[in-house]
Amino acid sequence: MRLPGSDMRVLVTGSSGLIGRTVIAALGKTYRFAGLDVAAPSGDLAVPTTVADVANLEAILPAFKGVDAVVHLAASVPFRSPWPEVLKNNVIGTHNVFEACRAQGVKRVVFASSNHAVGMYEQDSPYREIVAGAYEGLEPGGFAVLDHTVPVRPDGDYGVSKAFGEATGRYYSEAFGLEVACLRIGTVNRHDRPARSVRHFATWLSHRDLTQLVDRSLRRPLGFEVFYGVSRNRWRFWDISHAAETVGYDPQDDAEDWRSGTSSAPRQPRGG
Amino acid sequence: MRLPGSDMRVLVTGSSGLIGRTVIAALGKTYRFAGLDVAAPSGDLAVPTTVADVANLEAILPAFKGVDAVVHLAASVPFRSPWPEVLKNNVIGTHNVFEACRAQGVKRVVFASSNHAVGMYEQDSPYREIVAGAYEGLEPGGFAVLDHTVPVRPDGDYGVSKAFGEATGRYYSEAFGLEVACLRIGTVNRHDRPARSVRHFATWLSHRDLTQLVDRSLRRPLGFEVFYGVSRNRWRFWDISHAAETVGYDPQDDAEDWRSGTSSAPRQPRGG
Repeated sequence: MRLPGSDMRVLVTGSSGLIGRTVIAALGKTYRFAGLDVAAPSGDLAVPTTVADVANLEAILPAFKGVDAVVHLAASVPFRSPWPEVLKNNVIGTHNVFEACRAQGVKRVVFASSNHAVGMYEQDSPYREIVAGAYEGLEPGGFAVLDHTVPVRPDGDYGVSKAFGEATGRYYSEAFGLEVACLRIGTVNRHDRPARSVRHFATWLSHRDLTQLVDRSLRRPLGFEVFYGVSRNRWRFWDISHAAETVGYDPQDDAEDWRSGTSSAPRQPRGG
Repeated sequence: MRLPGSDMRVLVTGSSGLIGRTVIAALGKTYRFAGLDVAAPSGDLAVPTTVADVANLEAILPAFKGVDAVVHLAASVPFRSPWPEVLKNNVIGTHNVFEACRAQGVKRVVFASSNHAVGMYEQDSPYREIVAGAYEGLEPGGFAVLDHTVPVRPDGDYGVSKAFGEATGRYYSEAFGLEVACLRIGTVNRHDRPARSVRHFATWLSHRDLTQLVDRSLRRPLGFEVFYGVSRNRWRFWDISHAAETVGYDPQDDAEDWRSGTSSAPRQPRGG
């Protein structure tokens, strides 16, 4: 069965990256994807790809022609990226992507923002304790989660650039009618499980929950939205109710299923 | 009488502009000012000025040495400035100013943000009616004002750049201990009165109220703050209580004193 929206032409920027490849692989039969990346696609990526730099508006404009929606992932991703790279790829690049959408009449942008736009909340209790795995005295769900209305508190140039991207998206949405979903994505990795940090038991976003959130943000009605991209983790501290109410986000995975009984080392999940 | 803080060395970026000249003229006996501007100072500006471009970090770094506080005004100011200018002067320039402060150990930044970071609220009632002078059915103070916690809603690239500057300031404050006051400045003009737009009866900031807000933001204790720079206007719709409580902002002027009885054309003020 093909769902509504399945004929949408969707351009993915940063299509050769981990999230781009994950989304295209999972939703490749649902949408008519094209890619845009500074790196040529690897052999298994079966979508037509424009090799161009988002920092160059003229170079990327043609790729936006006739596109219904854009999934904007292109960015310098390591959250300690140096400012010159963040400036070029995240600030200038994101401005250019929104401007290209406006110029070419694209209707919707799903923008990969980041939890690092609000990363400094992790300096405060109880988030500080949770990311350290110090759960004593805490109950899952027994504290205020961070929702889409909290002021931004970036934890680096990277987080600042994502706050910039959200502000840009809001402007383009309100001034030009673009529908914009900003996804404050948590921890997505190649292993597709919490790995290397106890923080991930709070922040993990599984590939299939990521894919579901992108899918629903592409096809459900929305205006300007900020959603947290996080699985249904027992120790999550980011709100998922706004995404649930707005686009029906219904995450299936819980990082806790990867936790062994007495240590924070990941093990095989209990469930599916 | 010299007030506490009067020996502070204060660097003003954009010192040759309207606000820079106004602040330096009014507070020149209170602080030890220096200037930084792309334009050489005019003859009446009696402070030592570095002629350099904030877009060039290396060029501006020396001017920050030994400075206690920075009043960061340098920017492309017209709110319809084209993106390339906004990018260079407001985005890159503001990043560089915060970075120069960090590198040189400056303790505090008073950053000229703008009401345009939240300008899109003026699309909504009752602000829409107030900026049009359609006061029927409205009571001054009888509606919610915009405070420092509302999400940003920029009304252009300029407003986006100011939201970026605020996010940058928050990051530098939380990561490096810089004290940062972001002033969402309303309408400041050469005439020092509401002029040319009925909107100004809500948004006007008199020179002496501007000066007082900058002065108190330079010397009173603060962390990371967002203050609205607006006079005590009858029809203001921006909060002044947070600035009052935090730094004792006590504006003296009311745009209404410039209004004639039956038209929106400014007249001589009733009071002082």
